[in-house]
Amino acid sequence: MEFHSKLLNNAVEQMATLPGVGKRSALRLVLDMLNRSESDVQAFTMAMTRLKNEIKFCKKCKNISDADLCNICANPQRDETTICVIQDIRDILAIEATQQYKGLYHILGGIISPMDGIGPDDLHINSLIERANAPESKEVILALSATMEGDTTNFYLFRKLKECNVNVSVISRGIGIGNELEYTDEVTLGRSILNRSPFENNLAR
Amino acid sequence: MEFHSKLLNNAVEQMATLPGVGKRSALRLVLDMLNRSESDVQAFTMAMTRLKNEIKFCKKCKNISDADLCNICANPQRDETTICVIQDIRDILAIEATQQYKGLYHILGGIISPMDGIGPDDLHINSLIERANAPESKEVILALSATMEGDTTNFYLFRKLKECNVNVSVISRGIGIGNELEYTDEVTLGRSILNRSPFENNLAR
Repeated sequence: MEFHSKLLNNAVEQMATLPGVGKRSALRLVLDMLNRSESDVQAFTMAMTRLKNEIKFCKKCKNISDADLCNICANPQRDETTICVIQDIRDILAIEATQQYKGLYHILGGIISPMDGIGPDDLHINSLIERANAPESKEVILALSATMEGDTTNFYLFRKLKECNVNVSVISRGIGIGNELEYTDEVTLGRSILNRSPFENNLAR
Repeated sequence: MEFHSKLLNNAVEQMATLPGVGKRSALRLVLDMLNRSESDVQAFTMAMTRLKNEIKFCKKCKNISDADLCNICANPQRDETTICVIQDIRDILAIEATQQYKGLYHILGGIISPMDGIGPDDLHINSLIERANAPESKEVILALSATMEGDTTNFYLFRKLKECNVNVSVISRGIGIGNELEYTDEVTLGRSILNRSPFENNLAR
């Protein structure tokens, strides 16, 4: 798809750099942008520029933050003995929505994935080890994706964390609440039998 | 979905103003934007700003153009006796791709839709009438969507164009090439029987 306007071509190409946006949708988005007022377009571009130039990351957990410490790390109500390791900020939103976790987080910034050229040095692993070595730390919960890359990263982190004076745990994998046994894939079902837990543990708390 | 960073909140809200982008996808797009280099973000925002500030519209057909006349209107090879009326620039791309049309275009900028508050005065109708009144014009082809709004607009334009010295035609509606009769909806099938054409007209040209 080529247009005879360089400006349009350029805008569509840039819009198509967004993940999941093809050339055709990019054109739709760009035409929508063109129909807006100048100040609306400016508000849009300013938001992106300011995000990139002014955003800070929490010194402790690498969460996106307007201050040095994010609202979770700065909250004295949170249990600072526990650190939950996740991939990115969206996982914090998901876990916070459950209202079941009162500890702190540590954002890795990805998972080890040799296929994508992401090694341990590209992730916030050193700062995690530092935090795990701090005297207040008692437990590190690994909450990464249940994929091969996630498992590799879990294993790598486990070996590193073994030398620190903390318990290392992994969030449980199993059949989702409300799912039927017969439609569960066999790997998950197998894991959920191996990882069975005493009945009393599962009574609603 | 609320974040504790105002910058992030603002960027996500702006991203979610794009058509078809919800808050959740907006967050994904914004996080992708955040992972880019400063110059990449600048290239993105500059493309949108320049598009809005510097784009021109063809004086004749309202197509997007870098010059006063778009490449189609400026092309002496095109047949200037015929004007095809369409809704927006994407329709030009679709018709040009068929390589079956050698005339000029006229972009209405939408269709009459009282539900969305779009009346005849919001569309490029006056300039169409002017062009139809020009001595070189012989035919106006209406190629709007086959919806109720499209039909309303067609009828409105037909009444206006009747007073000009041009033939007014409509692109044909019927069963798509390669589609099976039994799976065609009854309105289309009915129209395609009413609008039947002599067999010789349909021999491949």
